[in-house]
Amino acid sequence: MSPTASTRTPLSPTPRTTLTRSKERGRTDRAELDAVLDAGLVCHIGVLLGGAPVVLPTVYGRDGDTVYLHGSTGAGNMRAALQGDISVAVTHVDGLVYARSAMHFSMNYRSAVVRGRAVEVTDPDARMRALQVIVEHAAPGSWDRVRPPSKKEMAATIVLALDLTEASVKVREGGPRDDQEDIDTGGVWAGVLPLQQVWGDPIPSADLESGVGTPVEVLNRVSSVSASA
Amino acid sequence: MSPTASTRTPLSPTPRTTLTRSKERGRTDRAELDAVLDAGLVCHIGVLLGGAPVVLPTVYGRDGDTVYLHGSTGAGNMRAALQGDISVAVTHVDGLVYARSAMHFSMNYRSAVVRGRAVEVTDPDARMRALQVIVEHAAPGSWDRVRPPSKKEMAATIVLALDLTEASVKVREGGPRDDQEDIDTGGVWAGVLPLQQVWGDPIPSADLESGVGTPVEVLNRVSSVSASA
Repeated sequence: MSPTASTRTPLSPTPRTTLTRSKERGRTDRAELDAVLDAGLVCHIGVLLGGAPVVLPTVYGRDGDTVYLHGSTGAGNMRAALQGDISVAVTHVDGLVYARSAMHFSMNYRSAVVRGRAVEVTDPDARMRALQVIVEHAAPGSWDRVRPPSKKEMAATIVLALDLTEASVKVREGGPRDDQEDIDTGGVWAGVLPLQQVWGDPIPSADLESGVGTPVEVLNRVSSVSASA
Repeated sequence: MSPTASTRTPLSPTPRTTLTRSKERGRTDRAELDAVLDAGLVCHIGVLLGGAPVVLPTVYGRDGDTVYLHGSTGAGNMRAALQGDISVAVTHVDGLVYARSAMHFSMNYRSAVVRGRAVEVTDPDARMRALQVIVEHAAPGSWDRVRPPSKKEMAATIVLALDLTEASVKVREGGPRDDQEDIDTGGVWAGVLPLQQVWGDPIPSADLESGVGTPVEVLNRVSSVSASA
């Protein structure tokens, strides 16, 4: 299959975001970076742990030029994330591209890759704001509806901020790009099988007391199609 | 929100897969690891590039105890992946967990994290077999229907094998786990909004000649629900 991981395109060119492969998939519009990040539910964070990279899924949120991450103060990966540069990736798979030859199979996707040095957010107001950004990213409209973090919860939480200065976006869309020879030979189906993420009907918690209705922001989500996770 | 990235559980315990947090989410069944990997379309690979981790999405396939990855021989990240340990993660988001307090919001998910040293597959038959595994992983039933890789394509492709010896699986399912105090206070909706990936109708390639029908393995996929990407 056509590998999807080999290319990144600079939004802010630095030596290590120099374009090397599949340049046609690179996007330089900052709005596209924001769109890919905002449409995701989880990111994959890469940190150096014991000298080797480890990739872990986690929730996140974006506010302007900053991606916020959080974790338990007891989590080794959060402490490790502060010891050196990290990387954060968000990927949406939009379809599977069936080609006429094995090596031209591909995915339609949108992906963002961020690299940089994360810093710990220590100011109390900024920490609270970052957690609000993370919750509102995953569950828009929920922050003001629920109990805010307590002092104890805040003390057990580490918040990281990663700047979007060094980031790249790649997008593949459209049909297969087969070799002319294979097209001429003919007889092999080729096309795209689209993939979408859809929300199901909300399931109230088993311990929810009667008379508490489903919030409108949850109901509205069901009728929409999630961009992706 | 309750962070989802802080824990991993050993299938094959090693010092660096020691269970540290959220032990109830860890799974030790090898079949669960296989199920999470087999249900994915893309993984996120973490490699050390210029001394810092970078996370990139890519396609993959599993055969027994091995995950196969591939890329262009010209891709720096593939060469970098052979210089030290790498990590591969596959994550499925199954739902968003709405809680009564901000820090108890969570995701329902299945995730697998693999760490280890990848080796380059050099035997010609093994390379071809690995590419077949990758194509069949993404598009079951397609390999025998399409043109196999040419010598030129094979020469431009690097194939990596990563052993599943050091791997962990985490699963979260079910409703919110709110503090008793918040449940007693009441008045706040809590529950789960399920998330699914679904295939759309196949879109034949614009350059497909008339008379070539959609393969049955593509049609069958449409009526099923993808486990996730």
